[in-house]
Amino acid sequence: MSVVDVPETAPGPGQVQIDVAFTGICGTDLHILHGDMDRRVSTPAVLGHEMSGTVARLGEGVDGWKPGEPVTVLPVLPCGDCRTCAAGHGHVCPRLTFIGIDSAGSMQQRWNVPAGALVRLPDTLDLAHGALAEPTAVAVHDVRRSGLAAGEHAVVVGGGPVGLLIAVVARRTGAHVLVLEPSPQRRAVADRLGFATADPTAADTNALIGEWTDGEGAAVSFEVSGAAAGVATAVQALAPRGRLVMVAIHAAPREVDLHRFFWRELTMLGARLYSPHDMATAVELVAGGHIPAAQLITQVEPLERVGAAFAALESGAGVMKVLLDCAAAR
Amino acid sequence: MSVVDVPETAPGPGQVQIDVAFTGICGTDLHILHGDMDRRVSTPAVLGHEMSGTVARLGEGVDGWKPGEPVTVLPVLPCGDCRTCAAGHGHVCPRLTFIGIDSAGSMQQRWNVPAGALVRLPDTLDLAHGALAEPTAVAVHDVRRSGLAAGEHAVVVGGGPVGLLIAVVARRTGAHVLVLEPSPQRRAVADRLGFATADPTAADTNALIGEWTDGEGAAVSFEVSGAAAGVATAVQALAPRGRLVMVAIHAAPREVDLHRFFWRELTMLGARLYSPHDMATAVELVAGGHIPAAQLITQVEPLERVGAAFAALESGAGVMKVLLDCAAAR
Repeated sequence: MSVVDVPETAPGPGQVQIDVAFTGICGTDLHILHGDMDRRVSTPAVLGHEMSGTVARLGEGVDGWKPGEPVTVLPVLPCGDCRTCAAGHGHVCPRLTFIGIDSAGSMQQRWNVPAGALVRLPDTLDLAHGALAEPTAVAVHDVRRSGLAAGEHAVVVGGGPVGLLIAVVARRTGAHVLVLEPSPQRRAVADRLGFATADPTAADTNALIGEWTDGEGAAVSFEVSGAAAGVATAVQALAPRGRLVMVAIHAAPREVDLHRFFWRELTMLGARLYSPHDMATAVELVAGGHIPAAQLITQVEPLERVGAAFAALESGAGVMKVLLDCAAAR
Repeated sequence: MSVVDVPETAPGPGQVQIDVAFTGICGTDLHILHGDMDRRVSTPAVLGHEMSGTVARLGEGVDGWKPGEPVTVLPVLPCGDCRTCAAGHGHVCPRLTFIGIDSAGSMQQRWNVPAGALVRLPDTLDLAHGALAEPTAVAVHDVRRSGLAAGEHAVVVGGGPVGLLIAVVARRTGAHVLVLEPSPQRRAVADRLGFATADPTAADTNALIGEWTDGEGAAVSFEVSGAAAGVATAVQALAPRGRLVMVAIHAAPREVDLHRFFWRELTMLGARLYSPHDMATAVELVAGGHIPAAQLITQVEPLERVGAAFAALESGAGVMKVLLDCAAAR
C-alpha cells in the first residue's frame, strides 16, 4: 500500500467532488488487501467507503448541493431493473456495484462520486463521528432484519466494531443484549458500554443464556464472529421460533444443526449492507449522539500512515475502529 | 412388530373413544421402529397418528360429539403456559407431547384420545382420504411458513409423500412448482400430477432452475430430501431474498453455504408439525378433492399385516403412502 500524488480529476457530469474528511477502515478493506477479493478488485485500487467530508464542487447537471455541505456517501449502486430491485431489495441486486470496491474509494483527499450517492450530514456533527454512519447503517439493517422487539433477548456473537454497533442499536429497541466475545480488551469496551458480556471460550454459554432468559432461550442472535464455533453458539442460543441473523462472512461452508432449525422452527436471515432508509436512520443515530463514537474510534491516523493504520487494525484485540484523516495534508 | 388382543379400555373423563378406520404410516413411525427415537419411545408402544375414524363413545364430561361422526385427530398437545405457547406457537412448545409417539397411537381398532384433539371430517369424505388430513396439514404449514405467493417459483427437493403434498399445496397458491426427485417411480407420480420434474442426480439443477426462472432463481425452496446434497440444492436454487423451508429431519449437522445466505440475504425457516388452523385448512383441501389421494395412497393393508405394510414402505421407490385398514377385523 502506498500514498501517491495524482493529478486532480474534475467531477464529471452528474458527479460531485467531495473534500474527504475521514475514512474508516472496514474488514472488507482488509480482505481486499489480502487478495481475498482479487477476482473483483485489481490494482491499482483506491479503497474506502466508510467516510465523511464536505461538498467541494459540482459536476455538470448537478444541483441541490452547495460547496461546504457535510456529507457521507451511500456506496451501493443497484442495477435498478431486475426483479430484486423491483421488489425493493436493491442492496442485494445481483448486478450491484459498490463504490470503494468496484470503483475508487474515499482514501484520497478529493473524491468524485455520483450525486445520487450523497447523504447529507447535520452541520453540527463532528466529521470523525460522521464516518461511523456507514457501519452504523449495517447495524441498523441487521437489527431491522431480525425484527427485534422491546423486551426480547438478543445475543451478539462477536464484539468487534460491527458487533458492538449491533448491540447498541439492538438495545435502543428496548431489547436485553448480551455480547459474547473472547478478547478481554474488546469485552472491556462492551462492559464500559454497559452490556452484559461473557467469554464464550470460558463460560458454558448454553447454561448462561438459559439462566439469562429464564430457561427459554434468546429471541434473536447475531452471528458476527465469522467463526465455526460462533455459528454453533448462535444456533444453540435461540428459543423456539428464534431468529439468527447471519452478519459475518463465512468463506467456507459451515456445519449447521439443521435438526434444531426444524425442531424449534428457527429462522436464519442473511443480512448484507443496508437500504437508503437504514442509512438515514444511521445518520440520525450518529447525529443524536446515540452511537458511542469516542469508545469505538480507538485511533485516527493521517492518510500518509495508511500502512500503519491497516497494521494497527490487524494487530487486533485492543483496536476497534481506525480512521484515516484524509484532510490532514490539505 | 406384532398385533395382539388386549382388553378394551373405556374412555376416561374428558376422552372420546374412536373406532379407527385408517392409519397412514409416517416416516416418523419408521424412525421409531428402527430405534432412532428410543430415548423418547419405549416398548410396548402403539404407533400411528395419521388417521381417520368415527366417534364410538364419550367419556365422562364430554359433549359436543355424537357416536358415528367422522373424525381425525390433532395429535399435538402443547403445555399451554410457556412463552412459546403464549406467542401462539404451541406446536413447537418445548414441553409438547404428541399422541402416537409419547402416548398410544391409532394403529388399533378402538382408540381413546382427549376430546379436545378431535377434528370433524365431512360426512361425505372417503375415510381413506381422511387419513391424509394430517400429512396434508404438514404441507399446509410448510407452504404457509414459506410465505409463497402467486406467480413465484418454488422448488421442492424430494418427491416423496410429504414433498408431493407440499407441491400440491404450493401450486394451489398460484406458484410455479418444480419437483426434484432421483427415483424414477416417484418422479413418474409427480409427472402424472402435472408438475415440472427433474432428476437432480442427472441434470445440472443450477442451470435448469436458472432457465426455469429467467436467470433469477426461485423464490422458495423446500428441503424434504433429508440428504446433504438436497440442502446444497435448496440453497443454490434461491434468488436474492429467497426462502428455504427446512422440512426434512437431518440427524447430523450439514455443511451450509452461509456466504450465500449473507450475499443474497436468504432466509432459512425451520418447519415442524402444524397449527390447528393448518389442520382445518388441510381438512378443507382433502374434503374438496384437492389432494390427489388416489395417486398418493399406493397400498392399503389390513391391520394384521402391519409388518408387511412397514416393509412395503421401506422397500422404497414405487411406494408412496401406505394405509392400515384398522376396521378390517371388526
